[in-house]
Amino acid sequence: MKKGLVIVNTGNGKGKSTAAFGLLLRAWGRGLRVCVVQFIKAETGKWGEIKAAQKLGIDWFTTGDGFTWTSKDMDETVARAIAGWEIVKEKITSGNYDVIVLDEFTYAMHFNWLDTNQVIDWLKANRPEDLHLVITGRNAPAELIEYADLVTEMLEVKHPYQKGIQAQPGVEF
Amino acid sequence: MKKGLVIVNTGNGKGKSTAAFGLLLRAWGRGLRVCVVQFIKAETGKWGEIKAAQKLGIDWFTTGDGFTWTSKDMDETVARAIAGWEIVKEKITSGNYDVIVLDEFTYAMHFNWLDTNQVIDWLKANRPEDLHLVITGRNAPAELIEYADLVTEMLEVKHPYQKGIQAQPGVEF
Repeated sequence: MKKGLVIVNTGNGKGKSTAAFGLLLRAWGRGLRVCVVQFIKAETGKWGEIKAAQKLGIDWFTTGDGFTWTSKDMDETVARAIAGWEIVKEKITSGNYDVIVLDEFTYAMHFNWLDTNQVIDWLKANRPEDLHLVITGRNAPAELIEYADLVTEMLEVKHPYQKGIQAQPGVEF
Repeated sequence: MKKGLVIVNTGNGKGKSTAAFGLLLRAWGRGLRVCVVQFIKAETGKWGEIKAAQKLGIDWFTTGDGFTWTSKDMDETVARAIAGWEIVKEKITSGNYDVIVLDEFTYAMHFNWLDTNQVIDWLKANRPEDLHLVITGRNAPAELIEYADLVTEMLEVKHPYQKGIQAQPGVEF
């Protein structure tokens, strides 16, 4: 009955990456082998989730430079996304993991840094049947939603910035 | 700038509790003091997230009997919700925590096992200003959404049961 799921957390609300990290914690709790390949966010970021992963011994690969469409060096930003995808392919085919989180990966497809159809064709041909993939980010392409088994849209109903409250460490990052 | 947030994850989709556990992991990664009071789910449940919390030394209190509206002993189910709320009040006023997750807590209000206005009035009067609360579950009452700082609705876009795929351990529970 073991079947690897492709899970997509998308939408404009909070909780896309956070739910992926919660799933990671749950899988780690059951002794599954997990890793994260994180797009967009900068290598130098010292996020609460990275600190936790270090404490737990979870493999975590950051590939971004902190920029998306606002990048001042778009060649670099795109090159990082392409390099990140190469890391993903290696991890998927390595046999070393049961669950792989591709955090903020939708952007690489949405901005056409990677070709969505090529990505999905590669996954169809190479993803082991029992490997779970969790992909997060806004603007998940329609082809990805079609390919996925479980898709949730996180909708923003209310956000503290509307009241002028700054982001709180440990909770929002 | 430290301000405790009231965070609500609601909606019919996946990721409500899972995002709360991800937030817990993030907060734990930053050295914050965290705990979970879990409603509805049975004490005997051996969920991946409980196994993880045990490994991390996170305080976790289960108060439910596994039933909601299908309970065969509704007095018992309601009594457990009321007892769970007493535990929550004790944890909130204890000064021992920076983040408290009230998992599946919306149901206790939705089914009127607890009076929503009484719960919110108590929180307004007693919640320390810097304490973060994360409340999950479907059907969050309007009064709770009004009181909260950050509300996300998880919408089901696609679910594996639609394809006849069973829930996968380590990923969905």
